[in-house]
Amino acid sequence: MASKLAAECIFCKIIRGEIPSFKIHETAHSFAFFDIGPLSEGHALVIPKHHAEKMHELPDEFLADAMPVAKKIALALGADNYNILQNNGRLAHQEVPHVHFHVIPKPNEEEGLTISWPAKKADFDKLKELVSKTKI
Amino acid sequence: MASKLAAECIFCKIIRGEIPSFKIHETAHSFAFFDIGPLSEGHALVIPKHHAEKMHELPDEFLADAMPVAKKIALALGADNYNILQNNGRLAHQEVPHVHFHVIPKPNEEEGLTISWPAKKADFDKLKELVSKTKI
Repeated sequence: MASKLAAECIFCKIIRGEIPSFKIHETAHSFAFFDIGPLSEGHALVIPKHHAEKMHELPDEFLADAMPVAKKIALALGADNYNILQNNGRLAHQEVPHVHFHVIPKPNEEEGLTISWPAKKADFDKLKELVSKTKI
Repeated sequence: MASKLAAECIFCKIIRGEIPSFKIHETAHSFAFFDIGPLSEGHALVIPKHHAEKMHELPDEFLADAMPVAKKIALALGADNYNILQNNGRLAHQEVPHVHFHVIPKPNEEEGLTISWPAKKADFDKLKELVSKTKI
């Protein structure tokens, strides 16, 4: 089932070179290219060379490689303000079901990622309870 | 200067235990705790144990550790839909000047991260030029 998904996955096809891309970097575990539907100039994607829909399904070595690659891209772009975003699930705005980390320059108010931040004040008793329930 | 910044940094103080936090996990390179101004239940932060304002200033070993920690948190929370977000610079919505990765569960449309996605169609000639300018 996983290999069938990988065979049909648009990002796996980009990694295999079956679909062209604006590639900017590649490592043993990651592939990076410019998004063709960018939020700003330089909007890039870092994708693991392993088919998984959500980040918690990825082996650690792929997760460990992604941020150092994103750092290289930020440095190469000379971005001063930028966002790293990785969405899991349709409800959380994920569009392609293969893990991808966005590197999105934020050159001004109009371009790049816009987010709303309706933070709540935490209930400290509930947080204490959540800490005790969250076993890692 | 860096040590002065670290001495005064609220996240460095949390790491050193000088300010209490709802800690959920710790490794040699990372410290994780629940956000007290959450966007949804389980909203957590993963912060590197190294003072840097922006992710491109961090040594790779700290960057490499952050996503495996975020994965552990997502698994522990049992989150199905969630976002990983890391903001660099005031313009890009960064509030605390110490790198932090948000793990934000998205249980429904109302709670969690809300983003707008005003994507543009890329100019392929410009992208080609940008690839050749982006030396990594």
